[in-house]
Amino acid sequence: MNGESNKLRLIRIGIDTLNEFYVILSANCFVCKSEGFETLTRVLVTHNNKSIVATLAIIHSNIMSENDASLSESAWNELGAQEGDYVTLSHLPPVTSFKHVRSKIFGHAIDEHAFYEIIQDIVAGKYSNVEISSFITACSRDNLDINEIIYLTKAMITTGKQIHWDFPLIMDKHSVGGIPGNRTTPIVVAVIAAAGMIIPKTSSRAITSPAGTADTVETMTPVDLDLTRMRQVIDKEGGCMVWGGKLGISPADDIIIRVERPLDLDPEGQMIASVLSKKAAVGATHVIIDIPVGPTAKIRSNQGFLKLKEYFTTIGRAVNLTIEVIKSDGIQPLGKGIGPALEAKDILAILKNDKKAPYDLKNKALMLAGAILELGQKAALGKGKEAAREILESGKAYKKFIAICEAQGGFREPPDALYTHDIVATHSGTVVEIDNRNLALVAKLAGAPHDPAAGIEFFAKQNMLIEKGQTLYRIHAQTKGGLEYSISFARRMPHIVKLSRE
Amino acid sequence: MNGESNKLRLIRIGIDTLNEFYVILSANCFVCKSEGFETLTRVLVTHNNKSIVATLAIIHSNIMSENDASLSESAWNELGAQEGDYVTLSHLPPVTSFKHVRSKIFGHAIDEHAFYEIIQDIVAGKYSNVEISSFITACSRDNLDINEIIYLTKAMITTGKQIHWDFPLIMDKHSVGGIPGNRTTPIVVAVIAAAGMIIPKTSSRAITSPAGTADTVETMTPVDLDLTRMRQVIDKEGGCMVWGGKLGISPADDIIIRVERPLDLDPEGQMIASVLSKKAAVGATHVIIDIPVGPTAKIRSNQGFLKLKEYFTTIGRAVNLTIEVIKSDGIQPLGKGIGPALEAKDILAILKNDKKAPYDLKNKALMLAGAILELGQKAALGKGKEAAREILESGKAYKKFIAICEAQGGFREPPDALYTHDIVATHSGTVVEIDNRNLALVAKLAGAPHDPAAGIEFFAKQNMLIEKGQTLYRIHAQTKGGLEYSISFARRMPHIVKLSRE
Repeated sequence: MNGESNKLRLIRIGIDTLNEFYVILSANCFVCKSEGFETLTRVLVTHNNKSIVATLAIIHSNIMSENDASLSESAWNELGAQEGDYVTLSHLPPVTSFKHVRSKIFGHAIDEHAFYEIIQDIVAGKYSNVEISSFITACSRDNLDINEIIYLTKAMITTGKQIHWDFPLIMDKHSVGGIPGNRTTPIVVAVIAAAGMIIPKTSSRAITSPAGTADTVETMTPVDLDLTRMRQVIDKEGGCMVWGGKLGISPADDIIIRVERPLDLDPEGQMIASVLSKKAAVGATHVIIDIPVGPTAKIRSNQGFLKLKEYFTTIGRAVNLTIEVIKSDGIQPLGKGIGPALEAKDILAILKNDKKAPYDLKNKALMLAGAILELGQKAALGKGKEAAREILESGKAYKKFIAICEAQGGFREPPDALYTHDIVATHSGTVVEIDNRNLALVAKLAGAPHDPAAGIEFFAKQNMLIEKGQTLYRIHAQTKGGLEYSISFARRMPHIVKLSRE
Repeated sequence: MNGESNKLRLIRIGIDTLNEFYVILSANCFVCKSEGFETLTRVLVTHNNKSIVATLAIIHSNIMSENDASLSESAWNELGAQEGDYVTLSHLPPVTSFKHVRSKIFGHAIDEHAFYEIIQDIVAGKYSNVEISSFITACSRDNLDINEIIYLTKAMITTGKQIHWDFPLIMDKHSVGGIPGNRTTPIVVAVIAAAGMIIPKTSSRAITSPAGTADTVETMTPVDLDLTRMRQVIDKEGGCMVWGGKLGISPADDIIIRVERPLDLDPEGQMIASVLSKKAAVGATHVIIDIPVGPTAKIRSNQGFLKLKEYFTTIGRAVNLTIEVIKSDGIQPLGKGIGPALEAKDILAILKNDKKAPYDLKNKALMLAGAILELGQKAALGKGKEAAREILESGKAYKKFIAICEAQGGFREPPDALYTHDIVATHSGTVVEIDNRNLALVAKLAGAPHDPAAGIEFFAKQNMLIEKGQTLYRIHAQTKGGLEYSISFARRMPHIVKLSRE
C-alpha cells in the first residue's frame, strides 16, 4: 500500500451487466475494509479525470488480488480504461435527484427542472436499476399528468443528441407494440420515399422478440449507420431504415426500457414519452402513430384508444410534432415469417408484387403509408391508400427500396436456413386459437434473431380449415442443435396452434 | 454437447451479490444462444432436485468455457452445490405473484393470500432486486391500509421460523432507529432478566452504522447462537442477547431492508411489519416500542408519533402482541462510545455503577426497563423506573449480565485499540451542532464495525463549553492505515462538532 491508499489496479474479467456499471473488488481489498464498502454499495470510480457511479460486487476467490479492481464491460467502455490502469474509489453522495422520485412517491408532482435532473442522472449512469425501478413504479398508473409527461418527454429529448434537417417536412411512423410480425416499416419507408417525401426511419433490434425491425432490415442491407452516413442516405434517397442505437437519441429511453421489461410494466406516460422523444430527437415533424386494438393487444378498448390518442396528440404538439393517430386491427399476427430473414422475405414478396405475398401485411402497410401521404398532403383525404397502392404496385416502391439499400451499403438477399422441419396437424379441424407467445419462443429456440435465417414460416391463420397431416408451421434453423431444441419444445407444446375437434 | 444439451458444469469464481442469486455463463455458451438468454434475464437453475431463480450475467473473458456455469456465493449455498456438479438452466415463467404488485400499482388493495404469495416468493429468491424495489415503492406513502399492514406482517411471520416458549409472558423491546449510540438493549435485558422475567432478545448487526447491537455484544460474549443454544440460555438465565440472523425468523425482512436502504425509503407500513413480524416470530407476548421524537430523528412531530403509536398497537393486537409505545427524546446521541468495543465499555460502566458512566444512556435504559417491568406487572404503574434503578444499582443487573454472557459461551472484556488520536478544538466556544452522519463515517473509516476496537470516544455534547485545545473526540483504530484514513477525513470535515464563536 502506497501513499494514495485507495488506488487499485484494473484487471479484466469481462462481466457484462448491461447498462448498470459494476466495479468488482476482492473481499480482502483494503479499500473495502477501510471505506466500509459492501456488496451493492454505490461507489464513485475515477479513472484519470473521468468518474462513473458503479455498484460494488465482492469476489471471494483468488482470481483477483487485494490490490486489483475489475469493471463490468459497460464501465470499461464508459471510462475508456485499459487493463493495468489505476482507478480511485470513493464514497458517493446520495444521487440528489432521487429526492424528486421520493417526493413523487409521497404524492407531489415532478416539475420540469426536476424531470430534467432525474433523466440527466439516469443517462449519466448514476441510478442503479433498483432506483430506476422505483422511478418507474412511482410514475406508473395514472400518476403522471399530461404536463409531467411533457416534461419527461422534453427531458428525454434534451439529454440525448438531436438531429436537424434542412427540409420542411420530415415524416415518421410508429406502431405501438403487441402484434407479432407487424413488419410494415420497410414497405412504408419505400412507398413514402418513392413519393418524394423525407422519412429518416430509425428502428430497434429485438429485445425479447424473435426479430426487431432493425434485425429484419439487416438481412438485406447494413443498418449500423452513424449520423453522417444516415444523412448521406437521406440526401440521396429521401428515406432510410437504420438501427437507432448508434445515433445517441433519447438514451434514457433505452435504459428505462431495460428495467421496465422484467417488471412487465409499460406505464402509459413513459410509453408516450419514449415514442415521442425518439421521434422529436430524430427531427421528425409529422408522425403517424398506429395503435392496434384487440383482445390480446396492448390497447383493448375503444375508450383506451381514445384516451391514448388524445395524449399522443397533445404531448406531440408540446414538442412540435404533428401527430395523427390510427386505430388498426390488433387481433391477429401479420404476414407469414417470424424471424429476421423470413420476415424480410415477406417484405420483398410484397415489394415485388409476388402473388403469394401475405395480403394482410401488405394491406396494413398501405393503410399506414396512405395516412402519411395524406398527412403530408401528397394525397387528398381518403385517397392516400390508393395512392400508396399505385406506388407499390407500379414497382416504384421496390426500386426505391433497392436504391435505399444500395445507399446504406448494398442490397443482399436474406439468407436461407440450413435445416427445416415441418410441424403438422395431428387431426383435422379449424384454427381456433394461436399461442403467439410460445410460437415466438419456438422461433427463438431455433436461433432467431441471433441466427438471422432461423425462425418460423407460419401457415395456420385463424379460422383456416386444416387437414390432418397438413403443415401448421415450418421451423427454420441454422444449427442442428437449434433445430432439435425447438422441435423438442414444439412437441411439448401441442396447442401452439389449437384446432377445433369436429 | 451431449444429449441433454442444457447441462452445464459448475466452476467457482466466488462472486458475492448478497440476497440476489446470480448465474454466470460464458458469452459463447450454447444454452445462452439457443435459449435466447441475455444479461439480466431471470432463469431457473436446477441442481439435483432443487431449483432456484437466478439473474443471468454473461462473462466475455476466457476464465469460463462454453460448457461452464458459475453461481454467486448465496446461490452455491442455497443449492448446496459443489464445484464440478452439473446444473440445468431453463426459461422462467413470470413470477406470478408479481401480478399482485402490478395490481397494487394500479390502485387495488392486496388481500391476505396475495401478500402471502408475494412474501413467499421473495423469501424463495424469486424476486429480483428490481422487482423488490417496485414492490417497496408501490407500498410506500400511505398506500397500505391497516389491514394490508396486518396481512404483510402475518405473511412475514409465517414465511419464516416461529419460536414458541413454555412461559406465559415473553418480554421484548424495540427502538425505532435514528439516534446514534442508542445501545440500551444489553442493560435492559440484564435488568429484566434479573427481575425474573423472560426476554429472548435478538438483535441485528450494523448495516450502515459503525455498530449494531449484535456487534457491540459480540465484543463481550458470542452472539452467533442457533435456536437450541438460545433456548438453553433462556432456560438458565431468562434473558439472552443474540444475533437474529441465524434463527430464520422473518427472512423476508432482511431481504426487503437490503433494497430499501439504497433507496433511502423506509415506508411506515413496511417498518411496522418488519418490527412486529420479528417480535411475533421470536415468540414475544409483550413489547415496548421506543420511538425517539426530535428534529433529526425518524419521527419529527407529536402527530406523527401518535399515528405510529396507534398503528403499532392495533397491528400488534392482530398478531397477538401486547404493545406499549413510549415517546423518548430524539434530539441527541446517547453515551460516549461509537463502535462495538467503545459502546460495550459504556454499557459495562453503567452496569458496574462506575461514576463516569454516561448518565443519558443509563437514564434511557432505566426508563425502558421500567416500562417493561410495569407492562409485565413486576412494578406498579409509575414505579417501574425506580424498580429498574434498584436492580441496576444493587449490582444484580451486572451479575445477571455476566451470567448471561457465561451461558452464551463466556464473558470477555471488550478490546482496546492499538492506536488513538485526539481531534481537538481549534478555538473556544459552545457546542451548537453535531454532524452525526459524518461522525459515524469517521468511526467507520477508523475500521468500525469490522475492527471491533475501532471507533470514537465522543466528549463534546450539545451546549458544552469547550476550551481551545480541548479534545472533541478521540479516534480509536486497530490499523495504522485506518487511523490515517479517518484522521485525514476528520481534518477535511472541521464542522463535525460546530462550536459557537464568542
